[in-house]
Amino acid sequence: MGQTITEKIFSDHIGKAVYAGEIVDSPIDMVIGNDITTPLSIKAYEQSGAQKLANPDGFCIVMDHFIPTKDIASANQARISRDFAKKHQLKHYFDEKDMGIEHALLPEKGLVVSGDVIIGADSHTCTHGALGAFSTGMGSTDLAYAMITGRNWFKVPSAIKVEFVGKPAPYIYGKDLILEVIRQIGVDGALYQTLEFCGDGIAYLSMDDRFSLCNMAIEAGAKNGIIAPDSITREFLANRPNLRAKPKEFFSDPDAHYTRILTIDISKLEPVIAYPYLPSNGKSISEAVKDNLKIDQVFIGSCTNGRLSDLRIASEILKGNKVHSDVRLIITPGTQQIYKEAHKLGYIDILLEAGALISNPTCGACLGGYMGILGDNERCVSTTNRNFVGRMGARNSEVYLANSAVAAKSAIIGKIADPRL
Amino acid sequence: MGQTITEKIFSDHIGKAVYAGEIVDSPIDMVIGNDITTPLSIKAYEQSGAQKLANPDGFCIVMDHFIPTKDIASANQARISRDFAKKHQLKHYFDEKDMGIEHALLPEKGLVVSGDVIIGADSHTCTHGALGAFSTGMGSTDLAYAMITGRNWFKVPSAIKVEFVGKPAPYIYGKDLILEVIRQIGVDGALYQTLEFCGDGIAYLSMDDRFSLCNMAIEAGAKNGIIAPDSITREFLANRPNLRAKPKEFFSDPDAHYTRILTIDISKLEPVIAYPYLPSNGKSISEAVKDNLKIDQVFIGSCTNGRLSDLRIASEILKGNKVHSDVRLIITPGTQQIYKEAHKLGYIDILLEAGALISNPTCGACLGGYMGILGDNERCVSTTNRNFVGRMGARNSEVYLANSAVAAKSAIIGKIADPRL
Repeated sequence: MGQTITEKIFSDHIGKAVYAGEIVDSPIDMVIGNDITTPLSIKAYEQSGAQKLANPDGFCIVMDHFIPTKDIASANQARISRDFAKKHQLKHYFDEKDMGIEHALLPEKGLVVSGDVIIGADSHTCTHGALGAFSTGMGSTDLAYAMITGRNWFKVPSAIKVEFVGKPAPYIYGKDLILEVIRQIGVDGALYQTLEFCGDGIAYLSMDDRFSLCNMAIEAGAKNGIIAPDSITREFLANRPNLRAKPKEFFSDPDAHYTRILTIDISKLEPVIAYPYLPSNGKSISEAVKDNLKIDQVFIGSCTNGRLSDLRIASEILKGNKVHSDVRLIITPGTQQIYKEAHKLGYIDILLEAGALISNPTCGACLGGYMGILGDNERCVSTTNRNFVGRMGARNSEVYLANSAVAAKSAIIGKIADPRL
Repeated sequence: MGQTITEKIFSDHIGKAVYAGEIVDSPIDMVIGNDITTPLSIKAYEQSGAQKLANPDGFCIVMDHFIPTKDIASANQARISRDFAKKHQLKHYFDEKDMGIEHALLPEKGLVVSGDVIIGADSHTCTHGALGAFSTGMGSTDLAYAMITGRNWFKVPSAIKVEFVGKPAPYIYGKDLILEVIRQIGVDGALYQTLEFCGDGIAYLSMDDRFSLCNMAIEAGAKNGIIAPDSITREFLANRPNLRAKPKEFFSDPDAHYTRILTIDISKLEPVIAYPYLPSNGKSISEAVKDNLKIDQVFIGSCTNGRLSDLRIASEILKGNKVHSDVRLIITPGTQQIYKEAHKLGYIDILLEAGALISNPTCGACLGGYMGILGDNERCVSTTNRNFVGRMGARNSEVYLANSAVAAKSAIIGKIADPRL
């Protein structure tokens, strides 16, 4: 019986063919924690009496949510991970010295590869499926179990096939594809299932687009998002200086089972903007501009859209323009490396000249942490992943999810705006 | 009867000779508010029934303390200043589009000149005395009075003369001079008086050093710190693209009255580091290193030492070195302009390579706001101005005030360290 790529990755890890619905106990290749979730994992780990990590080189901590520390509580919380990393001489520990948002940083550092089973105590861990890996978010105590044993249990997910057909229309990015998927199937449309992205359209998507696409699989309730490796994946991995392991490529069989097949012609797609308060509230940008909505803030960043291409797209649109007088534009590069490259390529200078505020890498504003929190009744166009009530600040503030081109154009116009015009 | 430079500035503004101890009602040249103090001024202004600002071009708001916004409260607070700036079409309004710490930004923008009377609702407004102006901090309602009337009352301060003799020893900066002054006279040693800095040593001090020196006059309780204009002042002002007004130079008469004369040979001075919990707890760096104090964080930034020369000094020391594994080094450029120039000059690349975290300009960590708050029992070497209990975080954390060279060297060594070694 044919298998999906996800079923094959688990079969490879277990040593026998497994299928959707089966409960498996799988070895884990990479376990990811951050400054707000790892302290709970460490507590559970220490309560277990464990003396050492099952797989120290398959464990990483990325300090990205409240770093540099927001307040005394976050400083004391950060100390727990810092002390643990020091005590265990963690090889993959990323703090202020080499900052990055975990889901931008790990691929960049070559710590995740095709064929991996990856778990992280962060919901957007599904991002790494873009490399042809199984990657999913779990709770902190689940993480502790993997820290202690090197393994965890999974119900192998059934899959929804999402076929992207055609060449993306202008200003269509990975972000639009996933917003369109979620618009069609809803925020619970893929509950505990795989969203397997395929079709000839995939070949047009850069790795940045693919990360952005898989990143929001969780916003449809998916267990994981995944894209089979191709030449773009291989080139990306070949350019990593220190790849953690040799990639293993898996591909779905032609007769693999899918619970549903979704086909989207991306050559006819318009940029999608998700209205408050759900990522599934997508509207086409040409519909949205009719609403004539004035905005207070634009945020470009996060594990969804804080990559080099986002800074390039924003700088192309902002070049020679000025951010509207009523708008703050906050740009948060995903990693130090992205920041450095963006500077070398002249993007940062263009963005500053236009009136953007460039912060250091951090999850910051996206989760309502800090560095751009919305006040009462403020409206924000954001390249992030969630627009729930109060996500970025006040309960009556509004977040509109969009790609970086829509965000940059809106920053200039002062209203939700169409980058194609 | 001879006059001090401060008495002459007030005499010029009043139109008759005035002396220390007299109460005067003076016109104000520049009124400065920020995101946390201006809302209170605006409230008092609006309660007064005033319809317009007495001198709109002599009023500026700099959004620097909690911008980009830290939380919902700071976002709602920021809105008050933003709305006011928009309503009054303020010419001198600085928000995320052109960020900077007020006392670094105003001189850079040419908004303060020699001979001015300047007030700001921020204690470190005394910084601008470095240009040969009278500049002092006031409360928010005092600011409102000046917004409404264009004037305010002052008791003309008596003066302490501080003579710096000789050429500064290596690694001696404005910061060391003021820490030494405060060490000698205490945190109330200049209560409601002028600290007039003079002597042949002044000629060796860059404008950055002079701003740093006058910035901490308040830490000795001084009403203002001041330095008579010279060729360095003139060159600095000549290089401002849009000087607000023509500078007016005043100089103390040889027979001016001083309540005290302090003479400090700066050719023999060692870098000074102020121990918790008072800026007056200065020790020489060679004494301090004997204490063998391990540190958790180094902060280089603030209105005291976040200028271009601070980033240059830090990059010279950090070039080819790495920040100690147990230390976080947070560097906050004072303004976007400083950040851009530091990048152009290669400092930012060196600092990032060494493992520093570069934030956007903000008052942030200095006042325990955000972006580098200390947790329990953490120890920080900081180029800021205050080391009071809890100033940068937890009540049991410790802040050691130093110049940027001491800070950078300590970041490498992981302990309070001597940059001369």
